[in-house]
This record gives sequence, structure tokens and C-alpha cells, in this order.
Amino acid sequence: MKTKERIVRSTARLMQRQGYAATGLKQISQESGATLGSVYHFFPGGKAELAIAAVRHGGKEFADMLRETLEREDDPATAIAACADELAEGMRASQWQDGCPIVITALESAGRALDIQRAAEEEFAAWRELVSGKLRRTGYPEDVARELAHTVISTLEGAEMAAQVGESEEPLRLAGRHLARLITSYRP
Amino acid sequence: MKTKERIVRSTARLMQRQGYAATGLKQISQESGATLGSVYHFFPGGKAELAIAAVRHGGKEFADMLRETLEREDDPATAIAACADELAEGMRASQWQDGCPIVITALESAGRALDIQRAAEEEFAAWRELVSGKLRRTGYPEDVARELAHTVISTLEGAEMAAQVGESEEPLRLAGRHLARLITSYRP
Repeated sequence: MKTKERIVRSTARLMQRQGYAATGLKQISQESGATLGSVYHFFPGGKAELAIAAVRHGGKEFADMLRETLEREDDPATAIAACADELAEGMRASQWQDGCPIVITALESAGRALDIQRAAEEEFAAWRELVSGKLRRTGYPEDVARELAHTVISTLEGAEMAAQVGESEEPLRLAGRHLARLITSYRP
Repeated sequence: MKTKERIVRSTARLMQRQGYAATGLKQISQESGATLGSVYHFFPGGKAELAIAAVRHGGKEFADMLRETLEREDDPATAIAACADELAEGMRASQWQDGCPIVITALESAGRALDIQRAAEEEFAAWRELVSGKLRRTGYPEDVARELAHTVISTLEGAEMAAQVGESEEPLRLAGRHLARLITSYRP
């Protein structure tokens, strides 16, 4: 792996687990095995620039999981429940360490670091678009699909948070089941 | 207001907006108008002890809002939608600054500051119990009520996060409408 990519991955992992404020350049340098000089060489904008790259990286990682899981099932309700199950298993496998890759940084940046906030909002929008696209392709009208996609992503995010803080798969398992029921209730 | 309460309120407000790691004792002392010596006098455990008090304070604040809004409406589906609307209005009124009072601190503490994590989980559980109680009192079976309460709180949390990062009431308005539909679909 190239040095720059190693730096981004380490930043993404650290900010996923501990957030933006707690993550220092020295720790990023240590975790990635890159010198501090090398970190500054690739990211002259420092921690703010690194945070944007980390948000992009985490956003893409989550989008890849979503896309693959949504494609595995024909029925969108079953597919969304499968996404929630996938998140529950990932959460348990990481011993409740790896929640949403970008949520802490997104919340910390809101109203104070607008470039980071904007990057996070773009990633959230991309996730919603994946869900919305799946619903449209299976016959849901455009506005219903768009609105459901909002609630699907909100619910998965909130349930992931609850699962992490409560160290339990249950919030995600229940979210998947309830979202499937909601989606089915709008079935065209 | 007593000095100790001023310190807790300032800590809660700062951690709500910027999280645990970014909040320093000096800033807490400045915001609350209490000397650093006074902060240490009331909270010999320092920042970790303050964070627990702030989580308790924020949790109670959110619980008060939930309880009052749930009591205002007889129908639990209408009541939950009203909670989402209330959150959307509060979010806009604070110019997207005041999201969930404890979520950043809860996520930052997960797996690393177990006393804070436990306090946050207890507050989340108390919120779920308020929703669950409303559902039971209106005839929902105990297990249905308990499970729906999980998803109601997860969805409100996730939608509040989305509203804050996207600076839009829409995620919360949609969450309220979708949760009302879900709750109605289980109506006994």
C-alpha cells in the first residue's frame, strides 16, 4: 500500500473510533508508520485536510457495504434488513469498536469546520441515493423512494450508535426488522 | 443558580456541541464563570466526572422533552411524530447547533471510558422506557412496545444527526411520519 493511502486509512480508523479532536498528527504518523514530515508532505492542510480524506474513505467503505448487500437481495425490504444484520455482525466482530466510520467527526465538525461537515453530508447523501436507487428499481415511486431512503439511513445510523454504546446487536436487528416492515407497507 | 449547577450546565452545553475530547477544564471554567479551583472542588475526578454529570444532565433534559410531548397527545403514533417535530424546531432554532445532548460524548467514550459509556447507556435506556411506557399504556403488548421503543429512539437519534449535519429539518420530519406509520401498523 502506498504511503498516502496508509496515512488515510490510519486517520479514518482513528477518527472512526475516537473522533476528530482526540486524533493527533503524531498518532496518525505512528499508526501509519509514516514520518510526520511525510504526513505534512501529502497533507499540507494538516488535520482538517486529513479529516476530509478520512470522511471520504469511510464514506466509500460504508457505501461499498451498502451496495453489495443491496444487490444480494431482490426485495428491497429484505435487502435493508440484511444491511442491518451485516452492521450488527461487523459491530460484534470488532468488539463494539467500529461504529459508523464518519459520525463522530461529522458531529464534531457541524457548525465549526464547514469543509469537513460538507464532505460528511455528501457521503450521507450518497448512501441515501444507493437506498433510493434500489427502491426505484423495484418499482417504488421517486418521492416515496427518496423519503424512505432518508429514514433508512437515519435509522441505521441511530441503531448503530445504540448498538455500540449498549454493546448489543439488538438495536440493529430490530431496526432491520422494522425498516423492512415500513418499506413493505409502501410496496407499489 | 448554584455554582455546581452552573458548571454542569456549561459542561453539558460544551460537550453537546463539540464533544468530550475538545472540551477543556479551562473552557468549562470560563463558560460557567467559576474558578478552576472551584471546578476541581466540586469535581475532584476532573473531566471524566464532569462528563458523567453532563451526560446525566443532558439525558434528563431530553427525557423531560420526551415525557411532556408524549403526554400532550393521546395516540402514541401522533405523539412520536410530535417529538420529531419538536426536535426539528429546536434544531432550527439553535441554527443547527444543538443536536442530541449526549451522542458525541457517548460515542467518544465507547470502549474507552466505561463509566461515561455506562451513564450514556442508562440515559438511552430511560428514553426508551418513556416511549415503551406510552405504548403499553395505550394497549400495545409489552414485547411489541419494548422493540418499537428501541427503533423509535434509534431513528430519532439518527435523524437528529442527519438534520444537524445537513442543516435541514427534513430528516426529522420524515422520521416522525415514518415512525407514526410503523407504530400504527402494530396498533392492537
